[in-house]
Amino acid sequence: MENRIHNFNAGPAALPLPVLEKIKDTFLNYKETGMSITEISHRSKPFDDVVNDAKARTIRLLNLGDNYDVLFIQGGASLQFTMVPMNLLPDNSVADYINTGTWSTKAIKEVKVLGKNANVVASSEDKNFSYIPKDINFSDNAAYVHITSNNTIKGTQWHEFPDTNGVPIISDMSSDILSRPLDMERFGLVYAGAQKNLGPAGVCMVIIRKDLLEKIPANLPSMMKYTTYAEKNSLYNTPPCFTIYTVQLVLEWLEETMGGLEKVHELNVKKASMLYDIMSDDGFYRGTAQPESRSLMNVTFRLPSEELEKKFVASALENGLGGLKGHRSVGGCRASIYNACDMKSIEALVDFMKQFEQKNG
Amino acid sequence: MENRIHNFNAGPAALPLPVLEKIKDTFLNYKETGMSITEISHRSKPFDDVVNDAKARTIRLLNLGDNYDVLFIQGGASLQFTMVPMNLLPDNSVADYINTGTWSTKAIKEVKVLGKNANVVASSEDKNFSYIPKDINFSDNAAYVHITSNNTIKGTQWHEFPDTNGVPIISDMSSDILSRPLDMERFGLVYAGAQKNLGPAGVCMVIIRKDLLEKIPANLPSMMKYTTYAEKNSLYNTPPCFTIYTVQLVLEWLEETMGGLEKVHELNVKKASMLYDIMSDDGFYRGTAQPESRSLMNVTFRLPSEELEKKFVASALENGLGGLKGHRSVGGCRASIYNACDMKSIEALVDFMKQFEQKNG
Repeated sequence: MENRIHNFNAGPAALPLPVLEKIKDTFLNYKETGMSITEISHRSKPFDDVVNDAKARTIRLLNLGDNYDVLFIQGGASLQFTMVPMNLLPDNSVADYINTGTWSTKAIKEVKVLGKNANVVASSEDKNFSYIPKDINFSDNAAYVHITSNNTIKGTQWHEFPDTNGVPIISDMSSDILSRPLDMERFGLVYAGAQKNLGPAGVCMVIIRKDLLEKIPANLPSMMKYTTYAEKNSLYNTPPCFTIYTVQLVLEWLEETMGGLEKVHELNVKKASMLYDIMSDDGFYRGTAQPESRSLMNVTFRLPSEELEKKFVASALENGLGGLKGHRSVGGCRASIYNACDMKSIEALVDFMKQFEQKNG
Repeated sequence: MENRIHNFNAGPAALPLPVLEKIKDTFLNYKETGMSITEISHRSKPFDDVVNDAKARTIRLLNLGDNYDVLFIQGGASLQFTMVPMNLLPDNSVADYINTGTWSTKAIKEVKVLGKNANVVASSEDKNFSYIPKDINFSDNAAYVHITSNNTIKGTQWHEFPDTNGVPIISDMSSDILSRPLDMERFGLVYAGAQKNLGPAGVCMVIIRKDLLEKIPANLPSMMKYTTYAEKNSLYNTPPCFTIYTVQLVLEWLEETMGGLEKVHELNVKKASMLYDIMSDDGFYRGTAQPESRSLMNVTFRLPSEELEKKFVASALENGLGGLKGHRSVGGCRASIYNACDMKSIEALVDFMKQFEQKNG
């Protein structure tokens, strides 16, 4: 048995142990090919099977209709900040953006770099991004409405999606993709860097409604065009094979071991509640997000002093609980509890938090 | 002992067995972190060490001066086809391109997609890209000269680089990076998708002369700008951690086990010769590249008929020799013999080829 820690990293993050074990066991000889998964050709049947299975499982898990395609693109969500407007926002049009934190802010910045029009129709910056805005006035005829469904750094999450009057929502779902069932018909495009809920860093999953593919300008760089990936089953050039393979195994685990998104969501609600339950406005542990906007994925909290926070993070690590430091831009503490963070890790953290409070409260 | 084949894939390709074994052995617990390398934070000391070591080894192996930087970028060489002109070719300027095959052709196409000026100053298309052009008339004042140092599909390679009168050469070295010593002072920028000589698919190494960084326009998308990567040590956003880690191990193997590029090159010459020695213009095995342009990395050859080629590839695989089919766009046979393809594999292939000729010649 390996001496593994409880991993609360924000991303790259914990992966399901059975997935890691499967990779390890077959690492020198993948499915009788006599090669490592890192050595097989992307133009081979074994790798076609990987991509096709990953797509099929995503479609089943999210209950996607025939009108959606699933793409695998390099460059992370950060490249999507550029690809989305480059592909889907004509120069004479406008897109609505809702600013709920660091990543939304970056997405908005990249639209402007392209010289295109982003209309920031709502923002929670007034209260340090501690909530998800409501009652939003959308533009008439926006090409799309862009949101960040879960804010890894600020610890907030959209629990209901806004009514955009038929305008397609485009969402950065890097930190909560496949953590709950989703009415995908509301969305024109969803993108997610893999390194939180899907697999290792190095690939971004893009789910796109096929009618949007038809509106993409022809004269874009090949690698920046969604149609390039859609037409070639994400195999226009050599894809990040190992990363996609790991994503496939995570999807298999989600479907076959965890039993799908309803069950995963139920578990995620329970996991998050166990942590939020030991927090209160005037307690030792204080959640930073407003209760109705709290994330089920990233639980952000403060202790009575920065000194205690430092001690908390260090002492947790000594006790086998890693990754609890808040993002360097905001400080405090954060427990990232994605799908692969299991109940035992939550129980261990709750126990530790109670003991730490007893000793230091 | 795993039942591994001799792997002659063009890319993704064979990796050094000791590298694969090291990954496997530490896959559930990387350096006492209690996490897999796929689960550790990119903002952690262990991962900083990975990136810094990979850079330092590249600098030592290529004997790079302080005036070069080493970057890790997603999207493969195909994204570099766009990034190079986007960053380094002003609209009112021209770049010289030499067309030596499929990949050069794609690089030229992407310059034109951007609406910029690529001047094709030489091409070997007249003879099906079977040679490397000589006696080239370069443009006056070109921003750079672009070449493809090794042509994976056509089996040709630049053995001497052209005199460009001080204009920086930019080279796609995806298939021969670190396979031989290099006078890097001739080059302004070199890029290489990892999946042939460096590691698994999913990262592209970019070596750039620092003075070129100063000429890059400010208003480019963040993820498309070399300065973004240079300023943040390739950690502006989450990088493909596992892939970079594997590259680091391959570089360590190149330096410490193989003894550096002089020795690797010597071995590569020997390996290629053993194969070319059993080919002749009127023989059973006929090399497709002109002798003085033959690649040390990709040995392309034909047999007397397509039927025999099919039989050759199938029979080789039955004998534990994989990946010998030529690229789907040209047919024939190809043995890709990058750094990690070891002498035992070459010996096994030579033996098989001799036997196959005896039976079928």
